Amino acid sequence: MLDFEKMGGLLPAIVQDAESGEVLMVAFQNHEAFERTRETGRMHYYSRSRDKLWMKGESSGHVQEVREILVDCDADAVVFKIHQVGGAACHTGFRSCFYRRLEPTGELTRTESEQVFDPAQVYAQ
Amino acid sequence: MLDFEKMGGLLPAIVQDAESGEVLMVAFQNHEAFERTRETGRMHYYSRSRDKLWMKGESSGHVQEVREILVDCDADAVVFKIHQVGGAACHTGFRSCFYRRLEPTGELTRTESEQVFDPAQVYAQ
Repeated sequence: MLDFEKMGGLLPAIVQDAESGEVLMVAFQNHEAFERTRETGRMHYYSRSRDKLWMKGESSGHVQEVREILVDCDADAVVFKIHQVGGAACHTGFRSCFYRRLEPTGELTRTESEQVFDPAQVYAQ
Repeated sequence: MLDFEKMGGLLPAIVQDAESGEVLMVAFQNHEAFERTRETGRMHYYSRSRDKLWMKGESSGHVQEVREILVDCDADAVVFKIHQVGGAACHTGFRSCFYRRLEPTGELTRTESEQVFDPAQVYAQ
């Protein structure tokens, strides 16, 4: 049903806060990560750098609970509307990975996305 | 400033309606497409199937005017908040390319995303 072939077995997964609509992160899924996500209701991804399946929150406890899955016209990208346990999707502790705005000057400034936790504390546990 | 290397020169570009927050489409940009987008304020993409730069709306007139650019923590994905001229981002005439919901049964159903135009009329002109 999904076309994993265009990117050599991967699809971009866009993760959006089910309530606010904020885009929280983008990662990649292979077929297994997609199926595990559907089966468990928790976001799973494929890490290209580590060449392995991982579940978001497996070390921090900050899992992502799936509320809705949307498929695009070409069936080669998926939007997941989720509830983020712990309030932050980014490993830096920000609510969204997209916490920086590119200004017309080329400068990166901070958006309104809050820093919810201190990564040194969460990942040290 | 952006990391185009992880995907062989490409980044996923997530396009979000600046007002409603709806995710409208996902496409890819190479460095040139990204720079042309910044220079012109209109979304440009790189087509993997046609191996060329294209501007959204170049045949339909339905251009995408950039309102805000957000960069993620790894600088390997970009969110563009835009205004969609003509009201529909999808070549099928739907407001969003993500007009189908994957139900727990595996069935695809229609979301609330409206069909704004008839593609046969727009692309025949």
